[in-house]
Amino acid sequence: MEWKVDREADKPLYQQIFEYIEEKISYGEYPPGSLLPSERKLAQQLNVNRMTIAHVYDELQASGLVERKKGSGTRVSSHKWGILPKGVTNWRKYIEGGSFIPSYPLIRRIRGEAKVMEGGYNLASGKLSSDLFPTDYLQSILSEYTFPTDLGYEHPQGLLSLRETIASYVKTYHNIHTTSSSVLITSGAQQALHLITQCLLNPGDAVAIEAPSYFYSLPLFQSAGLRIFGLPVDSEGMNPDDIMTLYKKHKIRMIFLNPTYHSPTGAILSSTRRLQVLEIAAELGIPIVEDDPVSLLSFDNEQHSPIKSFDRNGNVLYVGSLSKVIGSSLRIGWLIGPQSVINRLADAREQIDFGLSVFPQIIANLLLQSSEYPKHLEFLRQELLERRNEMLSALQDLLGDKIEFTIPKGGFFIWCKLNKSVDDQKLVEAGIKHKILFMPGSVYGSPNGYVRLTFAHLKKESIRDAVSQFAEVLNQV
Amino acid sequence: MEWKVDREADKPLYQQIFEYIEEKISYGEYPPGSLLPSERKLAQQLNVNRMTIAHVYDELQASGLVERKKGSGTRVSSHKWGILPKGVTNWRKYIEGGSFIPSYPLIRRIRGEAKVMEGGYNLASGKLSSDLFPTDYLQSILSEYTFPTDLGYEHPQGLLSLRETIASYVKTYHNIHTTSSSVLITSGAQQALHLITQCLLNPGDAVAIEAPSYFYSLPLFQSAGLRIFGLPVDSEGMNPDDIMTLYKKHKIRMIFLNPTYHSPTGAILSSTRRLQVLEIAAELGIPIVEDDPVSLLSFDNEQHSPIKSFDRNGNVLYVGSLSKVIGSSLRIGWLIGPQSVINRLADAREQIDFGLSVFPQIIANLLLQSSEYPKHLEFLRQELLERRNEMLSALQDLLGDKIEFTIPKGGFFIWCKLNKSVDDQKLVEAGIKHKILFMPGSVYGSPNGYVRLTFAHLKKESIRDAVSQFAEVLNQV
Ligand SMILES: Cc1ncc(COP(=O)(O)O)c(C=O)c1O
Ligand SMILES: Cc1ncc(COP(=O)(O)O)c(C=O)c1O
Repeated sequence: MEWKVDREADKPLYQQIFEYIEEKISYGEYPPGSLLPSERKLAQQLNVNRMTIAHVYDELQASGLVERKKGSGTRVSSHKWGILPKGVTNWRKYIEGGSFIPSYPLIRRIRGEAKVMEGGYNLASGKLSSDLFPTDYLQSILSEYTFPTDLGYEHPQGLLSLRETIASYVKTYHNIHTTSSSVLITSGAQQALHLITQCLLNPGDAVAIEAPSYFYSLPLFQSAGLRIFGLPVDSEGMNPDDIMTLYKKHKIRMIFLNPTYHSPTGAILSSTRRLQVLEIAAELGIPIVEDDPVSLLSFDNEQHSPIKSFDRNGNVLYVGSLSKVIGSSLRIGWLIGPQSVINRLADAREQIDFGLSVFPQIIANLLLQSSEYPKHLEFLRQELLERRNEMLSALQDLLGDKIEFTIPKGGFFIWCKLNKSVDDQKLVEAGIKHKILFMPGSVYGSPNGYVRLTFAHLKKESIRDAVSQFAEVLNQV
Repeated sequence: MEWKVDREADKPLYQQIFEYIEEKISYGEYPPGSLLPSERKLAQQLNVNRMTIAHVYDELQASGLVERKKGSGTRVSSHKWGILPKGVTNWRKYIEGGSFIPSYPLIRRIRGEAKVMEGGYNLASGKLSSDLFPTDYLQSILSEYTFPTDLGYEHPQGLLSLRETIASYVKTYHNIHTTSSSVLITSGAQQALHLITQCLLNPGDAVAIEAPSYFYSLPLFQSAGLRIFGLPVDSEGMNPDDIMTLYKKHKIRMIFLNPTYHSPTGAILSSTRRLQVLEIAAELGIPIVEDDPVSLLSFDNEQHSPIKSFDRNGNVLYVGSLSKVIGSSLRIGWLIGPQSVINRLADAREQIDFGLSVFPQIIANLLLQSSEYPKHLEFLRQELLERRNEMLSALQDLLGDKIEFTIPKGGFFIWCKLNKSVDDQKLVEAGIKHKILFMPGSVYGSPNGYVRLTFAHLKKESIRDAVSQFAEVLNQV
């Protein structure tokens, strides 16, 4: 809710809010019978006293626009404007349906809070802080760029010039060989994963993911009706032998991995294991989906070649993204795989959104082709390294005896094990009270008592303060 | 396939093609066991003689890279690189799975042809020709625009400033009252429809659509497991009484309508019927999805108020788009509806693609806010009117006695009834031979013998020639 009260206006606050709600009711945004936000929630959203909202709701009731029942909240009257109560859709029945499963409540709670929180610190977001987006460099590139008069060329796989750039990008940076015709440009890694689960797997199919895992936090596996089984992650990543075990037990049909600077743990799958995974999967004839959004963000100059770079038989679907190296607001990712798979997914994508906008594709292409790009990457690595170090030292100083962690060699996150047992839900709520957001481990399928902290989303100057807030939260629960 | 042979090179064509295929095999783009394109198809795609491809395939076979069996085509060898035949994913099993249904073969055929056809005329596409995209005006706006350093602000419903612009746009142009918090920005109307079918309806649910209908051409209803029932369209659009009949028979749960310059027929739902539809739907408590992409493109200065403009109870989900008024390559559309529905769909969208890129949203906002926009709209109407008139006169002159049509008062299409009975499939193939593409009526669920011709996708100068080609095709079948 972005509407705000105008504190300078002559009109009293309650009057402004009354008119705002009345308007939304009259426009059908709150249909007859629908529930208004609770007093507490609306007060928080609009940043006003709860008494003000109580006053507004009283007035709305007095004017007949809403009905209030103890315990069931405030509802828009069904009789307003003289319309029969029947003349209304029962939207709740629709909203609760659908094969698409909503986000997990705890994640929704954290994201919802991130949207409205004023002040405070967000250590939960997986996004690069927006000051790291190369805006100046984009501006200068665009100022010299002339849009082609024919923007109309659209291909279901995405802009040809960008696909060619990506083919050469993955060769340079990841030693992956491919041609533009086997690249599908997607709206980030997220859309690639969505397409794979919707188009290549059937409801009831079993798939393996790392445990804990970023994938676990995505309801898209459940939305596709898949059964997920975990591959426990140690300091060298998952154990390839576990694939065989899961295959025998559950006949898994696909393996989803995030081998480099794994989210949430930061683990790097060792190169021996990469080859083993590839071999075992090939032997079983089941494909690997390799999610590789951050492997370029190394803090020790080591590059870890993706599993895909060893794949000669098209057993790996490789998923890349610019979200963590340029910015998530671009929404540019890619999927590389066998021609037939790419064709199938490109066709489905047409039905989902009719393809990607040409503009972020042009922009991504300009950014990647520019000679500034390697400098930008280097800058980013340096900046993230400093932020990581700042967070490490703050954690050490402020929480040294209360948590354990390993030092991530790249990426965005520090994975912390808490030395006392806490309930994740309570911990998150305590954080919200202190205006400090973080991701509890349970979101990734780990037991209670783990936390993922992002160092990429806050400026260096804020990190120590954020960690000290977090320490306070931890002390209190 | 965008790779092309180099006719200037010293290297013989067959050698170039050999190396190209060999490369794709070695990269896993054509995995072991997978099928290569047929000789005929590859020859056509690369625009070379079929004998050349036969030569390439012979050489590939001689080198052991492929195996050829009569009747089952050319397959990549399973034994290449000394790998066991087992070490390979059977991708066909995956590709044929998935809950997402592929596009209809006839539509795939036409779209596929549109991609590779050189020369010829496309009367099938529903897209504005790219010369009508306001590139100059975009360039000049962008040259004065400074990107905010903080691009990071993202909201699951889309950029706030664009949502505010859309709220005022629909008020100005369509007399629809809403606030920015009830607007969801989507990747065109297509994504709005996808979200609705996936999130608000359950497999097995019955829904009503117009017959014929653009909706019929979209497998997304089937992908969501819905049963669709038709509302026959006459010159005043669908008949509201039919809703009641369908409701009694099939308990339909949602009604999808395209009331203004209906695709494919061009019909305009009369204003009496708009009110009746709203009333009946409200009485039954079932929502209407109103798809309204072209209503601003009127040729007679009449504006037809959307059903949504009469809706006070939030019974209508209104879907708009910039695809037909600016360009489909922008991929900007919107959905307006009750708050609770918008929240549900925004959450699901995060899981599908993590939201829209900020760049097309910024661009759309700049274009809509500029004082040039009303002039652009006026220019577009004029241009389309001229193209329509050109097509009407060509049809009259060249096919006057062979087809029937009514004159569309707006939009993109002329809907033609052929006076002889033809098989749609054969007609399309004959068109492809003559390099002329059009949409046969069966794609929209009408009987054989209808054709939808687009006048928005070709420049005026080409229209008469395109129609004369079409006339020739018609004479031959
Ligand atoms: C492991 C992992 N994969 C994929 C994604 C999704 O990224 P994108 O923005 O490219 O959809 C993220 C981002 O949070 C991530 O952490
Ligand atoms: C009736 C109708 N609805 C929706 C669409 C989809 O448009 P968009 O490009 O906004 O997804 C089209 C475009 O062909 C159309 O003709």
